[in-house]
Amino acid sequence: MYIEKLKEKYFLISKYGTAAALLEWDFETHMPKKAAEKRAEVIGEISGKAFEMAVSDEIGELLMKSEEESLNEIDKAIVRVGKKEYEKFKKIPPDLFKEINISASKAQAAWEEAKIKNDFSIFQPHLEKVVELTKKMADYLGYDENRYDALLDLYEPGLKTSELKKVIEPLRKFLIQYLNKLDEGKKPDNSIMKRYFPIEKQKELSLRALKLMKYDFDAGRMDVAMHPFTTTIGANDVRITTRYNENDLNDSLYSTIHEGGHALYEQGIPEEFSGLPIGDGASMAIHESQSRFWENIIGRSLEFWEYFYNDLVEVFPEFKDYTPEEIFKAVNFVERSFIRTEADEVTYNLHIMLRFEIEEALINDRIKVEDLPEVWNEKMKDYLGIVPGKDSEGVLQDVHWAHGSFGYFPSYMLGNLYSAQFYKKMREDIPELDDKIKKGDFEPALNWLREKIHSKGKMYEPGELVKMVTGELLNPKYFMEYIENKFNKVYEL
Amino acid sequence: MYIEKLKEKYFLISKYGTAAALLEWDFETHMPKKAAEKRAEVIGEISGKAFEMAVSDEIGELLMKSEEESLNEIDKAIVRVGKKEYEKFKKIPPDLFKEINISASKAQAAWEEAKIKNDFSIFQPHLEKVVELTKKMADYLGYDENRYDALLDLYEPGLKTSELKKVIEPLRKFLIQYLNKLDEGKKPDNSIMKRYFPIEKQKELSLRALKLMKYDFDAGRMDVAMHPFTTTIGANDVRITTRYNENDLNDSLYSTIHEGGHALYEQGIPEEFSGLPIGDGASMAIHESQSRFWENIIGRSLEFWEYFYNDLVEVFPEFKDYTPEEIFKAVNFVERSFIRTEADEVTYNLHIMLRFEIEEALINDRIKVEDLPEVWNEKMKDYLGIVPGKDSEGVLQDVHWAHGSFGYFPSYMLGNLYSAQFYKKMREDIPELDDKIKKGDFEPALNWLREKIHSKGKMYEPGELVKMVTGELLNPKYFMEYIENKFNKVYEL
Repeated sequence: MYIEKLKEKYFLISKYGTAAALLEWDFETHMPKKAAEKRAEVIGEISGKAFEMAVSDEIGELLMKSEEESLNEIDKAIVRVGKKEYEKFKKIPPDLFKEINISASKAQAAWEEAKIKNDFSIFQPHLEKVVELTKKMADYLGYDENRYDALLDLYEPGLKTSELKKVIEPLRKFLIQYLNKLDEGKKPDNSIMKRYFPIEKQKELSLRALKLMKYDFDAGRMDVAMHPFTTTIGANDVRITTRYNENDLNDSLYSTIHEGGHALYEQGIPEEFSGLPIGDGASMAIHESQSRFWENIIGRSLEFWEYFYNDLVEVFPEFKDYTPEEIFKAVNFVERSFIRTEADEVTYNLHIMLRFEIEEALINDRIKVEDLPEVWNEKMKDYLGIVPGKDSEGVLQDVHWAHGSFGYFPSYMLGNLYSAQFYKKMREDIPELDDKIKKGDFEPALNWLREKIHSKGKMYEPGELVKMVTGELLNPKYFMEYIENKFNKVYEL
Repeated sequence: MYIEKLKEKYFLISKYGTAAALLEWDFETHMPKKAAEKRAEVIGEISGKAFEMAVSDEIGELLMKSEEESLNEIDKAIVRVGKKEYEKFKKIPPDLFKEINISASKAQAAWEEAKIKNDFSIFQPHLEKVVELTKKMADYLGYDENRYDALLDLYEPGLKTSELKKVIEPLRKFLIQYLNKLDEGKKPDNSIMKRYFPIEKQKELSLRALKLMKYDFDAGRMDVAMHPFTTTIGANDVRITTRYNENDLNDSLYSTIHEGGHALYEQGIPEEFSGLPIGDGASMAIHESQSRFWENIIGRSLEFWEYFYNDLVEVFPEFKDYTPEEIFKAVNFVERSFIRTEADEVTYNLHIMLRFEIEEALINDRIKVEDLPEVWNEKMKDYLGIVPGKDSEGVLQDVHWAHGSFGYFPSYMLGNLYSAQFYKKMREDIPELDDKIKKGDFEPALNWLREKIHSKGKMYEPGELVKMVTGELLNPKYFMEYIENKFNKVYEL
């Protein structure tokens, strides 16, 4: 059977993937600083070797021959997903790949400088180059209606720009209106989360949350990184990172729960998928739906705090002066603000829409890179009613465009929408869900996710998966209902 | 120039070396336990790839062609050392290599079980296999006088068994006599180091010692491992590990200083040697001379404690009831004991001689594996005057033979001897050395080592290097003088 040979080859490639992932994890967590320069070269070599093997003619032939064999459902999915990846990379000339990588790393350096100096003009020529190359790449990848489709497909396979726009329209309207409505509500006091909290104790609280979520510490670990991330080093090795701000408890706790959500997904993918094309999440957005589910839907719920309050008070006794409800409200403070990564659940998607609209227009030549600061600020005014005083808090805040990651931003929004849609269905399937969470029993929720989502790995496209799980395609109404329902309580409307 | 191509190739191979080293470091320090099985396979693949490249015909040709070019001293050394390594590995059939690796890993598992169950018979058949294969390997490597020479050369290039025996003879006689003499001296009180010491504070003390030694934390880090080790991940990335015993301060402090000594050596090898055949220590024994120099000659000296006493009392105020001299004596407690790794400076080399004599006899078929427990116990009686009550504290205590590392043990002893010989010369070159150390100024010592030893990397064979540094070949008399001089003070003789 060629399929067996194909799998062997994937397992072999995944060993280089493990090495590269560990080299990167170490780079972000433990590596001594003087080692950085050489380390980058090592990562380049090892991941380059994995890539070279993945796009080799041998893989191409094995895929073709396996496809002709009589395969079970899992093996079919391996071949289908493997072939899609393979063809995608084969379409792009290796020289263009290299050029993109080089330009992206120069653009990142320029972006860092531009952000520090608050000077978009430093970044502009580099971003122009990256946009130009990304458009070229999109053209190689191919599309029917919209060049942006080719990029979107890299992160959310199967989704079209036109569909995305249809989802965004009503959502934007709703969010802008709802934000205004919140102004009439009762603002919670979020200062209680912004006092001095020693790092060691924050760590303890984070670990308690992860244990509650059933994150498997024998198959993972938690470290510190400047920008928290989750990484799967290999089978039974899914690591998360978090960060600590001595004056903000939200930062570490919700970073940890968010990454914990990603990690539960990865830990729930069947071990026999590991190293294969299906041994991954269904898409960036489905991945984000898992992190946001745990971070926001569970972690920022009243039911969660009714249980976790005891842990909070054990670690930080000063919270005994507050009720679980006050904490629930404090962690759901809504604010029109400049920075996406600090945005709450109501404003977050507006930050994303703005980015999506700008990048879609850029890729289709409807705006130019030089227009970005102005367009950014106009949209901020329209959607959030505020304009950043400087580009470093505006158009320069995110690194994604420097990396050439156009098409990535929508995943964040889609993740929020998926999570609400999944949650709706989960509540129907588990009527006692709220009670369980109040009692600190998260297993029914986790088991549901495991069965419906995690155990499928990347066997299905996100569209298919959502339909299988919820009976319908992506529908933003569940998110809007969730937001209204929750924040009416928080703001006593 | 072929030499440039050769170096490029070595740099490339070293990237796989970095990946493998990090995978192994992580395995021993941070990896979640469920990941162990798969990780072992990844390490096998990546280090196998590095090995495959290192023994490729391409390297062989580049070495040959480079040798014919007009080279500077450094490049000549690269070719000479590279060629020796290359030819060594070429002499051994790849199948034998594989068989040794497989047998060694089975033997290690059997050894672990045998040690736990205190049953040599579990280990015996596996050790027989490993010995048989090791003899085969030695025959492929070749030798003039003694089959053991071929193995010794793997760890201590150039040294002959006959020379080693000449060094051992007077040393054994001296140590046995001197041990008896110590019985007449005043036994120090070592109980002061064996109370409860919280791990966090032990860590602080270890870090203070490393800082004092000028270990560069921007090019390294300290973690915890069951068996402390030092590893060079790559340029500017030399990591040490230590371990903590809550009831024994010696364990962490001297493990740390010992590994710190190894690390200073690696950090002192010129960055431009990194990744090349000369970018390493001169030999296992020279490496050990550096760790033992810092651990014993410096770290267990009265002068060291006259300075470090203040740090000790700052971290553990209870020591203010003792004088630096009492601590100096406590850490130099001599005892006839069963376990090599716990042995003091006087008895340590006796443990090594015993192992050397047994393995040399095994390799030359003068004894059989089945005789080992008996031979072991006889020699323990002759050299140390004690006989272990069980094999787990006797012949089963070390893992080396399970690994097939015959020829390795002498390095430990040679390291002790070299360190004393270097120290003798260092004192001549730096008359104010004791005063400097008393004042916590270790730079003169470090600079001397850097200039004379570290900066040479693996350019010279250990014999050559010792001659260059001290003006003569290895001579055990410096170690004997050092021991007598120091322990006469400790035991008030």
